[in-house]
Amino acid sequence: MTSAHTDFSPIVWRGDSLSLLDQRKLPSEEVWIETSDYRAVVECIRNMSVRGAPAIGIAGAYGLALAAMELAQSCIGDFSDRLHAAAREIGRARPTGANLAWAVERMLSASASAQTTEEVVSDLASEAASIHREDVEGNRRIGDNGAKLIPWGSRALTHCNTGALATGGYGTALGIIRAAWAQNRLERVYATETRPLLQGARLTAWELLRDGIEANLVADSAAGALMRRGEVNAVLVGADRVASNGDVANKIGTYSLAALARDNGIPFYVAAPASTFDMGISSGDEIVIEERDESEILSYGGNRIAPSGMSAFNPAFDVTPNRYVTAIVSERGVARPPYRRSLAAMMEGANG
Amino acid sequence: MTSAHTDFSPIVWRGDSLSLLDQRKLPSEEVWIETSDYRAVVECIRNMSVRGAPAIGIAGAYGLALAAMELAQSCIGDFSDRLHAAAREIGRARPTGANLAWAVERMLSASASAQTTEEVVSDLASEAASIHREDVEGNRRIGDNGAKLIPWGSRALTHCNTGALATGGYGTALGIIRAAWAQNRLERVYATETRPLLQGARLTAWELLRDGIEANLVADSAAGALMRRGEVNAVLVGADRVASNGDVANKIGTYSLAALARDNGIPFYVAAPASTFDMGISSGDEIVIEERDESEILSYGGNRIAPSGMSAFNPAFDVTPNRYVTAIVSERGVARPPYRRSLAAMMEGANG
Repeated sequence: MTSAHTDFSPIVWRGDSLSLLDQRKLPSEEVWIETSDYRAVVECIRNMSVRGAPAIGIAGAYGLALAAMELAQSCIGDFSDRLHAAAREIGRARPTGANLAWAVERMLSASASAQTTEEVVSDLASEAASIHREDVEGNRRIGDNGAKLIPWGSRALTHCNTGALATGGYGTALGIIRAAWAQNRLERVYATETRPLLQGARLTAWELLRDGIEANLVADSAAGALMRRGEVNAVLVGADRVASNGDVANKIGTYSLAALARDNGIPFYVAAPASTFDMGISSGDEIVIEERDESEILSYGGNRIAPSGMSAFNPAFDVTPNRYVTAIVSERGVARPPYRRSLAAMMEGANG
Repeated sequence: MTSAHTDFSPIVWRGDSLSLLDQRKLPSEEVWIETSDYRAVVECIRNMSVRGAPAIGIAGAYGLALAAMELAQSCIGDFSDRLHAAAREIGRARPTGANLAWAVERMLSASASAQTTEEVVSDLASEAASIHREDVEGNRRIGDNGAKLIPWGSRALTHCNTGALATGGYGTALGIIRAAWAQNRLERVYATETRPLLQGARLTAWELLRDGIEANLVADSAAGALMRRGEVNAVLVGADRVASNGDVANKIGTYSLAALARDNGIPFYVAAPASTFDMGISSGDEIVIEERDESEILSYGGNRIAPSGMSAFNPAFDVTPNRYVTAIVSERGVARPPYRRSLAAMMEGANG
């Protein structure tokens, strides 16, 4: 059972089109969006039909392959110029996560030596599939690396959705939870509902239930009280971008969980594939934090919650300073403070 | 304009019946529940049609007056026994807030020397009105006492609803915000939406808009990020019960805000009328934390959010240890650490 479920991917490549599970509609409806138009992929990233930094990177990669297919059949303008324009359009779809720019960059490099438009198309389709496959393989290793950090009989708290839905499959922080659960290390999981878009209540709950992992949903604001009561032995979160000093941009509320974990002497682990690392920035201060529409706070399911005339402030991410992070778990190993050194060694080791 | 609005009360005594504004339906509908049955008042407290510790105390007091009226017209059993049974029933409606038990106790004392059932009825109706009136007067003083703590040009963050809707009128933490706004000390207010029942999004937003106070709603989990960005100069919350050592039970999420405020060097103020003080308990460990139905987390507006089969854990309150509390503001003044001494002096001074 577990294997079938954890091999699940919300992104399915069909050779000349892409199927994306519309995560805005889960768990009440399982609707797949199928498109061969890269602009539709960009829109799916923007409107969060597909979300989670690794999943966004993979969708963006397939999107660029679709753009190349379309441009190869068109005679208007220069193919390479237009492909690069499409790459920029895809790369700009959402600003905070590192994986989208990383994936687009990797795609362009992979096709740089192609001699014909046909070769470009073929190289891009193949590279997107590699990015997807490597993400799932990496997540399995993140799971193994991270599970070792979880003492037997632990109760883990996680935030947002970092599972198969947020990645190419299996998940990052939820991958660690899957691996730790399979090893009988976990007694239970607390999943924060994750306002405003309720990725915890809708998506993480859906994945935990499918895998039969014992879990309770909690309001985001209950996490601190749970920690104070001694109900939490580890906090596990994902990352949208990790700076070279170990500062972590992730779903709004992550910094709060990190500070509360430290206040209660609980380890705080960040699970992040290397594609999430941005070694080009020296700290989290350089990370652009996306602010989303206030309607996400003011309404729910099309129904207004707040009175008409009220304003909301809706940052989608926050930055957790490195000093709150006990360890960063990637597919390459476990990095510990000081992160400037350990992350550099981790990235070097893999490239060298 | 301000005066008319801040004199507003969600509890209106009509001599032989009680009108309660149904706060579950705000802000989309303004529905009043009118009843002369104390059991209906108990139900309104339980289902949170009326909520906020001071408002619950006032509603409970009027409820006991209604019970006396009903019992005075009945010949079944002993009047006093049955009145005390009704008092116990009212007192048990919700466990965490101190004001309900305090109000019931005060009501029974006020009618203890009455010679006839008519006198009991009259004494109780009069005492409930006094409790109501004194709460509003006390809130005005809390506002004055607390506003002095707010430096000019501040941005304050508040949690849940502590306004006219949560009290007899004007409000506690929101009373301080009203007073500070009137004195031009406040630049803006951040109101947390306050999951699961969204008292911030529905009720505090409604009150702030009515008073024309510049405000933004934020997800509960965004409060920490706002503090880290330097966007918050003071955190102001109410209290459901204050222990003699200054530990504070309040809406779930309060402890998180307190810990985050300390982490960011921001003062954390608790506004609480003396009726909220429980000098009979030595610490917050003795406070019973109400756990409410998981459906409050799993569904919204009758529509399921989480997948079927998911469980939730839904504590309605948490306890903030005294070491996080910069000051406790009551109608009697401002108490500062060490609270065991300052709260005792505050209570003594008033009773002596």
